[in-house]
Amino acid sequence: MRIRAAVLGAGSWGTTVAHLLAQNTPTVLWARDPILAASIAADGVNARYLPDHPLHPALEVTADIGEAVGGADVVIMGVPSHGFRGTVEQLAGSIRAWVPVISLAKGLEAGTDLRMTQVVHDVLPGHPYGVLTGPNLAHEILDGHAAATVLAMSDTTIAERLAELFTTDRFRVYTNHDVVGCEIAGALKNVIAIAAGMADGLGAGDNTRAAIVTRGLAELTRLGVALGGEPLTFAGLAGLGDLVVTSFSPQSRNRRVGEQLGRGRSIADIVADTPMVAEGIRTAPVVVDLGRRHGVEMPIAEQVGAVIAGEVAAADAYRRLLERPSRPEMHGLHGLRGE
Amino acid sequence: MRIRAAVLGAGSWGTTVAHLLAQNTPTVLWARDPILAASIAADGVNARYLPDHPLHPALEVTADIGEAVGGADVVIMGVPSHGFRGTVEQLAGSIRAWVPVISLAKGLEAGTDLRMTQVVHDVLPGHPYGVLTGPNLAHEILDGHAAATVLAMSDTTIAERLAELFTTDRFRVYTNHDVVGCEIAGALKNVIAIAAGMADGLGAGDNTRAAIVTRGLAELTRLGVALGGEPLTFAGLAGLGDLVVTSFSPQSRNRRVGEQLGRGRSIADIVADTPMVAEGIRTAPVVVDLGRRHGVEMPIAEQVGAVIAGEVAAADAYRRLLERPSRPEMHGLHGLRGE
Repeated sequence: MRIRAAVLGAGSWGTTVAHLLAQNTPTVLWARDPILAASIAADGVNARYLPDHPLHPALEVTADIGEAVGGADVVIMGVPSHGFRGTVEQLAGSIRAWVPVISLAKGLEAGTDLRMTQVVHDVLPGHPYGVLTGPNLAHEILDGHAAATVLAMSDTTIAERLAELFTTDRFRVYTNHDVVGCEIAGALKNVIAIAAGMADGLGAGDNTRAAIVTRGLAELTRLGVALGGEPLTFAGLAGLGDLVVTSFSPQSRNRRVGEQLGRGRSIADIVADTPMVAEGIRTAPVVVDLGRRHGVEMPIAEQVGAVIAGEVAAADAYRRLLERPSRPEMHGLHGLRGE
Repeated sequence: MRIRAAVLGAGSWGTTVAHLLAQNTPTVLWARDPILAASIAADGVNARYLPDHPLHPALEVTADIGEAVGGADVVIMGVPSHGFRGTVEQLAGSIRAWVPVISLAKGLEAGTDLRMTQVVHDVLPGHPYGVLTGPNLAHEILDGHAAATVLAMSDTTIAERLAELFTTDRFRVYTNHDVVGCEIAGALKNVIAIAAGMADGLGAGDNTRAAIVTRGLAELTRLGVALGGEPLTFAGLAGLGDLVVTSFSPQSRNRRVGEQLGRGRSIADIVADTPMVAEGIRTAPVVVDLGRRHGVEMPIAEQVGAVIAGEVAAADAYRRLLERPSRPEMHGLHGLRGE
């Protein structure tokens, strides 16, 4: 069975995934901007987002979404959360029956708090859906460094078949049936990464960052489980793995935003300077809202949200976290253990 | 109730913990070497292990273990695993009834595979015991950076009272009843940190390190649970937190050993150059042995053990890990969920 792939969105990660797929199967990359599409097709390089990285020669590029989707046996959504629903609506007229839709986005829909696969289900009921997520910096993968990721789908047979399509000798794809947990983890970790970056900007050390990552993981696990995810997922590649890379890598956009906040810059200033989207800025208020609605204590996300909203300075937010009373480490988590 | 503390061992961490305690209660630090004891007493600085860090003026220092222990209401063991039993035997004649013994060591006893609190129980049955463990780099704590840690004891009342003694405005102490899990996590994480360092030495990127830490945590959780720890402990400060700091900090001895191995140096060469102990070198064969005896798959620890034993080059070990077949992410972990 030959599975032709269409990747929608020619940002850095969409382009990278298309490049990986092209090694295993006929793949077309859709760029919304015809100029970018023409330039990638002509040069074999995405000069806007991934200069200096030659793409697989078999990769096709188009600016015609109907053409990309109409011939595809799997559609991969490489667009950020704020453009996600619009793109799914745009492809609805061209996608064939039974074709699975895989999300690469790490965010929740503003206004509805929906996960991206819920948006897929909303617009395209009946299509199998899933999410590919993990500690995956695009540049490193294109440079040939080893990486691992998770493909989460409720249907194990489809997941295993699709996992083969993404796998190369340097890119390991694990399967997981917990779509909700993997997707929530991918969205929530950006907020904790902003907190880790804030600590850096304030001159904190490795101990502090490790404590923020650990307590942050506990916090996002509590919320993720309240939203229907499984506890173990958050300790896996989609949770811990992605949190670690997003919190520590100099290449991480969310960490960099936090670092600037820690140095006292306002979010408006930072956003004006940043060409690419840091999803955590949009996710923070959504996460705080979800925590309140589900009665889950989220001290780190609350402080990140307050700093982004300009209500509190980063140094004060950090002090508030330290002033909380000590308590048993697993407070609020032990009840999660038995599923 | 005034609780006088004795810290045994004037290495960098023992000295740091004594300095923290001295802020809250009368504390004496025991140095085995009379010259070091006299120098710390005279200068208020541990010039051998922590130069440039002035210690709390109220901290007392002695080279007489009987004097240190005889007046103590809690004894803190700041000696590494290979000298641990000898020191406990040495203090057995001086310790008073009911006095708790807290271990700071992160290793298992060679030959017996015992945890350090098991050694305490062996030599001093009837004394309450516990372990203080977490992402705690001594230099950063002395520099006043924020950090968090875990005090694990089976008796919650004693744990809460002692936690107050260690707590300062920059050092948060959480309590945990899972002594086994906290202690095993502290010992096992050093082996995974060596693997993360090996990846660095081989020029791998942030994705790879994140994957090693995540899969490494899954591996040490499997073994830790087989040995009687609770799964959640491994996702906490004693597990994940300490693993993150040991795997990523430039100051981590175990990470540095791994980095040198990754660059192709032999363990004999590396050890000859290193003044301080990297516990992971000793722990690796013990962990591999425990994994085999308990039927737990430990692919990362196995490869670290093989590199340390000189049986395989780091680059080949790394390749072997990548060549393992892909599989469901939570393979072997789902059974752990319901305690």
